[in-house]
Amino acid sequence: MAGLGNPKFLKPVTRDDADVGHAITFDTPLELDCGKTLSPLTVAYMTYGALNAARSNAIVICHALTGDQFAASAHPVTGKPGWWDSMVGPGKPIDTDRYFVICSNVVGGCMGTTGPAENNPATGRPFGLDFPLVTIRDMVRAQAMLLDALGIEKVMSVIGGSMGGMQVLQWAAAFGERVVSAVPIASAARHSAQNIAFHEVGRQAIMADPDWKNGTYQLHGTLPSKGLAVARMAAHITYLSEAALQRKFGRELQARDSLSFGFDADFQVESYLRYQGSAFVDRFDANSYLYITRAMDYFDLAAEHGTLAKAFLGAKTRFLIVSFTSDWLFPTAENKLVAHALNASAAAVSFVEIATDRGHDAFLLDEPELFGTVRGFLNAVAGSVGA
Amino acid sequence: MAGLGNPKFLKPVTRDDADVGHAITFDTPLELDCGKTLSPLTVAYMTYGALNAARSNAIVICHALTGDQFAASAHPVTGKPGWWDSMVGPGKPIDTDRYFVICSNVVGGCMGTTGPAENNPATGRPFGLDFPLVTIRDMVRAQAMLLDALGIEKVMSVIGGSMGGMQVLQWAAAFGERVVSAVPIASAARHSAQNIAFHEVGRQAIMADPDWKNGTYQLHGTLPSKGLAVARMAAHITYLSEAALQRKFGRELQARDSLSFGFDADFQVESYLRYQGSAFVDRFDANSYLYITRAMDYFDLAAEHGTLAKAFLGAKTRFLIVSFTSDWLFPTAENKLVAHALNASAAAVSFVEIATDRGHDAFLLDEPELFGTVRGFLNAVAGSVGA
Repeated sequence: MAGLGNPKFLKPVTRDDADVGHAITFDTPLELDCGKTLSPLTVAYMTYGALNAARSNAIVICHALTGDQFAASAHPVTGKPGWWDSMVGPGKPIDTDRYFVICSNVVGGCMGTTGPAENNPATGRPFGLDFPLVTIRDMVRAQAMLLDALGIEKVMSVIGGSMGGMQVLQWAAAFGERVVSAVPIASAARHSAQNIAFHEVGRQAIMADPDWKNGTYQLHGTLPSKGLAVARMAAHITYLSEAALQRKFGRELQARDSLSFGFDADFQVESYLRYQGSAFVDRFDANSYLYITRAMDYFDLAAEHGTLAKAFLGAKTRFLIVSFTSDWLFPTAENKLVAHALNASAAAVSFVEIATDRGHDAFLLDEPELFGTVRGFLNAVAGSVGA
Repeated sequence: MAGLGNPKFLKPVTRDDADVGHAITFDTPLELDCGKTLSPLTVAYMTYGALNAARSNAIVICHALTGDQFAASAHPVTGKPGWWDSMVGPGKPIDTDRYFVICSNVVGGCMGTTGPAENNPATGRPFGLDFPLVTIRDMVRAQAMLLDALGIEKVMSVIGGSMGGMQVLQWAAAFGERVVSAVPIASAARHSAQNIAFHEVGRQAIMADPDWKNGTYQLHGTLPSKGLAVARMAAHITYLSEAALQRKFGRELQARDSLSFGFDADFQVESYLRYQGSAFVDRFDANSYLYITRAMDYFDLAAEHGTLAKAFLGAKTRFLIVSFTSDWLFPTAENKLVAHALNASAAAVSFVEIATDRGHDAFLLDEPELFGTVRGFLNAVAGSVGA
């Protein structure tokens, strides 16, 4: 736990906040990969279920790029069900009748954890671009501080999809002794050139919006809504497979019988994308989007350790790696690279590729094989630790 | 040739223009699919090689979304070689020592053919969004008018990649009796939901730029450069395969030894995309981009004819269809749909899938198998027509 300071000296300040769930503010600074520190650091989080007396049934869920701590409860802004409501809850694969689930908002996020929209103590104004760049490892360090504060030394499992899966891998690499099992879903140990390229398009769309004002839009009372919506639209395409888009929308027209011969949203897929873009800006901060996409771009576990196998050398953690056949954002090949590295480091690893045409987003959807796989794996792990 | 008027009554006005090559202005209006007409219509074009006495060696080349008439000669704005310089020229697969090549700028374009940046005769000001929406069929109609004016009744071949391939298919469907052979490369008989989605992102990026000014930027002396650059960046990713991006750029850094922990173009792929975006705005009109992407979205040859096979019923045209294994924008499956439809309509069709990791852009690159295939096919066709 290098860089975290001694957990004994952490002085958590717990506060209740109806908007962000629970939150803890740490006096101990968070030392970041960029060389800067973040202090004070607040981590907003939700818990589901109850910690058992042996403290052996904790599961950490790591959220994806635009996710948050509301994995299994209504989102305070949109009122919609939690983003992993199908997976997490009483009797569900991540069964909150059995397990104690902790899900926190990542550092750099915008749902209560310290991020660029929060006030910079040095200036009393929102950080904006003065917020230090954070990495996936920084996100995981903050989660480890949260576990320390909650008095949980070891977790039964760390689970997440997409960027959540990156955090899962980082958890296993950085804090292997604290992680009994790890479930990275639809993820990768590095961001590919194509992944970086799509993120760069999104960032340029935001920065091209004059209402972004070099990141100081909060001071000006503006919002780079158009730029952020375009970024979301571009990203959203990558979350779905070509086949899923064709099946859901094809060339169907939106509320009209014939082409308009204009630039309205003639096609359903256009209308859908526009909605995705405009709904997103109501719940997400543009600067957070810049910072978190950057954290993903920077993620490269092999580069950090020399080789990917070295990242997991001597790992006692049990791994379940899941990929989806039609996921072209984090394709099976990238997930397999992780499995191969784990094999090379003699770790216990199961690899499951699930056949679906739903693309990357399948990890958030009603996928019975995913549910069954996760349920079975957790059940086995729970048995081994007596949870 | 319904809708074109009688070629005998065309009154072409040929003019020389150093910027756009040759150009012909027609007095006969172009009747458009949207129900409006375009008049006067100017078509800018280039020719390479010489028409033989029998007028049997003409080849029409159709350009892609951001292409133009400069297939085999330097671009007047950028000074760069023609976009198909590797394919077209003396001794090259489309051999201008043997064939007479005609390549014209599409209707709606911005290199001399009538498009939204040209003056609207009704107002004396640039069309902007008053320009009528054009379709792939409208583009082909204008090309047929050009051939009429040049006194060419029948062409040996119509060839093009991507949107150029759409025009090739439309040529064969609408003017089959004038087309001895047709070579659609990396193309499709319809735009898929994913294709439309990416185009919609690009259009929204342009329209989100306040300098676009609802399409009237020419009147205001502004240019929606940032929006157009973002549109180009998003589109450019779709032209390359994931493998090609990984091979060319991977996670290599751009002119630096370590990550900047900021939002500069740390990675080569970011720097490359930014360059693609900024170079594009110097040579392309934003409104043209809106109109031409829309024409592609609207393209659906099966919808026009009931089924795709009916589009080619009784066709005497010989087809060579080419796809690339790593092209995810116009994948082999879409190209095969065309081949199957042609088989169903008893047309003569060859289908070649070329193994390459270069993605959609492979049709513009040095691909020996593509060159050999096109050369051989044209040679056979030339023999059959005595060209």
